[in-house]
Amino acid sequence: MTTSATAPHAPAVEAHRATLEAAVAAIRDRAFWSPHPESPRAYPADEGAAAFAALRDRRFPLDDQPGTTGWVGGEVSPYGFPLGVEYPHPDPDLLLPAMRAALPAWRAAGPETRALVCLDVIARINARSAEFAHAVMHTTGQAYPMALQAGGPHAQDRGVEAVAHAYVEQTRVPATPVTWTKPQGRREPLVLTKEFTAVPRGIGLVVGCNTFPTWNGYPGLFASLATGNPVLVKPHPRATLPLALTVRIARDALADAGFDPNLVALAAEREGEGVARVLALRPEIRVIDYTGSAAFGDWLEENAHQAAVFTEKSGVNTVVLDSTDDYAGLLANLAFSLALYSGQMCTTPQNLLIPRPGIATDQGRKTYDEVVADLAAAVTGLLADDARAAGLLGALVNPQVPRRLAEAPALGEVALASRAVSHPEHPDATVRTPLIVKLSGDQPACLTEQFGPITFAVAVDSTEDALALLRRTIREHGAMTVLGHTTSAAVERALTEVCLDECAQLSLNLTGGVYVNQTAAFSDFHGSGGNPAANASLVDGAFVAPRFRFVEVRRPA
Amino acid sequence: MTTSATAPHAPAVEAHRATLEAAVAAIRDRAFWSPHPESPRAYPADEGAAAFAALRDRRFPLDDQPGTTGWVGGEVSPYGFPLGVEYPHPDPDLLLPAMRAALPAWRAAGPETRALVCLDVIARINARSAEFAHAVMHTTGQAYPMALQAGGPHAQDRGVEAVAHAYVEQTRVPATPVTWTKPQGRREPLVLTKEFTAVPRGIGLVVGCNTFPTWNGYPGLFASLATGNPVLVKPHPRATLPLALTVRIARDALADAGFDPNLVALAAEREGEGVARVLALRPEIRVIDYTGSAAFGDWLEENAHQAAVFTEKSGVNTVVLDSTDDYAGLLANLAFSLALYSGQMCTTPQNLLIPRPGIATDQGRKTYDEVVADLAAAVTGLLADDARAAGLLGALVNPQVPRRLAEAPALGEVALASRAVSHPEHPDATVRTPLIVKLSGDQPACLTEQFGPITFAVAVDSTEDALALLRRTIREHGAMTVLGHTTSAAVERALTEVCLDECAQLSLNLTGGVYVNQTAAFSDFHGSGGNPAANASLVDGAFVAPRFRFVEVRRPA
Repeated sequence: MTTSATAPHAPAVEAHRATLEAAVAAIRDRAFWSPHPESPRAYPADEGAAAFAALRDRRFPLDDQPGTTGWVGGEVSPYGFPLGVEYPHPDPDLLLPAMRAALPAWRAAGPETRALVCLDVIARINARSAEFAHAVMHTTGQAYPMALQAGGPHAQDRGVEAVAHAYVEQTRVPATPVTWTKPQGRREPLVLTKEFTAVPRGIGLVVGCNTFPTWNGYPGLFASLATGNPVLVKPHPRATLPLALTVRIARDALADAGFDPNLVALAAEREGEGVARVLALRPEIRVIDYTGSAAFGDWLEENAHQAAVFTEKSGVNTVVLDSTDDYAGLLANLAFSLALYSGQMCTTPQNLLIPRPGIATDQGRKTYDEVVADLAAAVTGLLADDARAAGLLGALVNPQVPRRLAEAPALGEVALASRAVSHPEHPDATVRTPLIVKLSGDQPACLTEQFGPITFAVAVDSTEDALALLRRTIREHGAMTVLGHTTSAAVERALTEVCLDECAQLSLNLTGGVYVNQTAAFSDFHGSGGNPAANASLVDGAFVAPRFRFVEVRRPA
Repeated sequence: MTTSATAPHAPAVEAHRATLEAAVAAIRDRAFWSPHPESPRAYPADEGAAAFAALRDRRFPLDDQPGTTGWVGGEVSPYGFPLGVEYPHPDPDLLLPAMRAALPAWRAAGPETRALVCLDVIARINARSAEFAHAVMHTTGQAYPMALQAGGPHAQDRGVEAVAHAYVEQTRVPATPVTWTKPQGRREPLVLTKEFTAVPRGIGLVVGCNTFPTWNGYPGLFASLATGNPVLVKPHPRATLPLALTVRIARDALADAGFDPNLVALAAEREGEGVARVLALRPEIRVIDYTGSAAFGDWLEENAHQAAVFTEKSGVNTVVLDSTDDYAGLLANLAFSLALYSGQMCTTPQNLLIPRPGIATDQGRKTYDEVVADLAAAVTGLLADDARAAGLLGALVNPQVPRRLAEAPALGEVALASRAVSHPEHPDATVRTPLIVKLSGDQPACLTEQFGPITFAVAVDSTEDALALLRRTIREHGAMTVLGHTTSAAVERALTEVCLDECAQLSLNLTGGVYVNQTAAFSDFHGSGGNPAANASLVDGAFVAPRFRFVEVRRPA
């Protein structure tokens, strides 16, 4: 461990000032920008593999974290082998006070120093992206290229974005004391000196998810930390390693910058232990970030009254097919979206609403049955080669997904059966292609989330009916993403109106290399926070502002 | 009524652009600024009296509001006469859909137009400040000068402040479509067009209070309206008139600007009807602003899960007396703070923590008993003349206050008895001077809010003990304000540390014409939102950001 409270690391932190300025400009301009290369060539895979191997079958190096009363582990790679890593299991009665004790100096450091130190944490994470890629791959089942990009630079982007928003929101008031002079007519004016301090709410809790531990974890982690809150990270017991690495690196960077490393700590747990439910109600926990099931997210929103609660839960992502001038592009783009990580993204489309009379295309009118058959063919073609398929699909993240996949064909007529793909390097991985089931818009099954490679081709009477079903779906069940294909200005207007009314993010006519599943930090909002799929958006002002308060000290000048 | 959807009133609205720009600068600089004169000379009292008289003993002119199923009234002036005004009692099943129908055009208007129209509403309110002063005086019991200033220009300032914050937060992203170009090495770049719309959450509900209907009502009303939410105003049944006037003016201004007047509506109720509890759980209500009792505020926070809930509840405001170099100034300033509006401000100090050994002053050491006696004398002197006393004290707002005041002497040794003041113009008004009761810091009574003219002089062993009691008081019961008097840099640091840790607004050494009860819009934060007294601060980013969401529409360029 490299901790040293006296090490003169300020220059290293100062080096991030340009990144902070560029990030602040980027969240305002929302054009393309990233401080992190995304090319795999930037992150040597073999070094990452070696670092990952060195972590396995041992205790994770976090013995400096206070309050450890035991060690827990049990992660099994979706590619078919146990990781063998054990993590400290803390006693919150010992760990939380140690974290709270770290707060005053971090608060006193101010928004700018906090932002720069957070950026230093992220820069150190970036330098180890290949190691993270292996850790993400073997906890989530993502294929390596995706684990590298989404788990590495793209997750880091979201972290930098959160830091930039936190910095902007905390610097809405002057950093130095203000003189307030109120005229009193002919009498002497009233003069006060006022000093404003951004004060954190308390300790932040990040409850990690199984599928995207870093991408979904970093926004809350860095938004809380940058606004002055110590952060306790409670990873999913099946995806602990990527967040344990994150915590380790954050502790080192904080210590190197002269701060108490207990500003960031890990709360690992045994599977099924339910630690989040206990931690979430602790009075010290004043901010909670959660990604996962709607049931627990709703429970948090309804019970953790002492905390600001930010959730991303689940939804029924919907595609409305009305018309297109690039039918081939539509099919290819959609097939890729369905296949990517076996549909295990919170942004993967589930319901494709297709009018029974068909859709107008550059290849003539295509009926509902033709569209479904053509899409099935596109998926089949995309995934024909097992090695290529495995590289797109990755592995199923946990046993619930294949169970759900096995039950789904009973819901309707199967338009494309899911097939088992044998992974060229990992024969024990569970790899499956997407299932497409035909449903009618009046069947209740299409209003439940089917997490995994399950697509419903939903027959509706007309585009108008599709819009009505879209509205009902978002309002009642939420959606992280909506995709529309239309060449009609009127339909586009109607689709936009539904998404504005029901508060859902809309992509239109994607036929090329941008997919509805993907959002870019600094430009796209991930979720809106305004429909049942999530109460938070990554990243807007509402995601950072409630994490701190301004405390004012005023006195006669 | 002046409503006309086609009237060319845009220039009137445009005239407020300079105000918007100045307000945006003011909330950033936090120096003194106000667009509203506060001198009573600016608002002819006789015209206000005539306008007020014209409103009495009739139905309030809101017959254009949809869904009215009856008329309710019953307000009685704390100065001793019934107002005789009746207000429409709406059926929410009819009124809420009409309000929701007004939303899309208001959303489409965008943040700038909404801000300018809101400023037009406030400018029209400002022009009628004297009328408002009478309405506020005869619903809250405030004396006329206070009703004019706090209920008029100061309340309007808070409204403009909310509009400025809402505008800043909504314009964090570009108003016009953005082109996003992502390089792809030697291939063609990916290019998308992205359009961002600030989308309101739904309908806002403002639950007004009895004591400051406009000052506490305007921040939430204008924050919600400026972020695109229609607003339903549910006034306190004893203080309906000032908010009914506000609703009437807002509806006229909205119509004149070409918008649906149903963007702002009134939900008057009979006393004891409990309409807020019903409205607060309606699915259409997505934002709630509430000022009032902790019991109902806590209930809202714990039950209205469908809404963003902003509360100002109650607290135990505390003064720590350690030392002073202006003992006379301290006594005069504190006596005024206790007397102003009979201690019926949410910011009035309640507990004065005084070390038993006494405090060092420019007049020598003063023991606990001496400080209490000197303060009692200062209050007595300030309020010796009945006419002057009535002008400071105003009337007790409702029967609960004199009841509480009658019971309080039993809590400890009375250092200053409350006396009845006869109002020179309103013999039926209940006017009372402050009661000062001696308590010891270990008596539980000092940890409960005693709303009204009840002050506890709390004896503690030392300044250190005072700080410990302060910390416990804020943490467990909350505080809107903290005041400290000290000449010691070490005590000042310790006091500041407690207020930063427990998130309370601190004033130091006020001995002149600024009082701890008073905060200035654009500069001071009212409440912190970080202790049990309130979950919101007037006005910061966290007060506006959760009221809307950004919805993005992206498509290939």
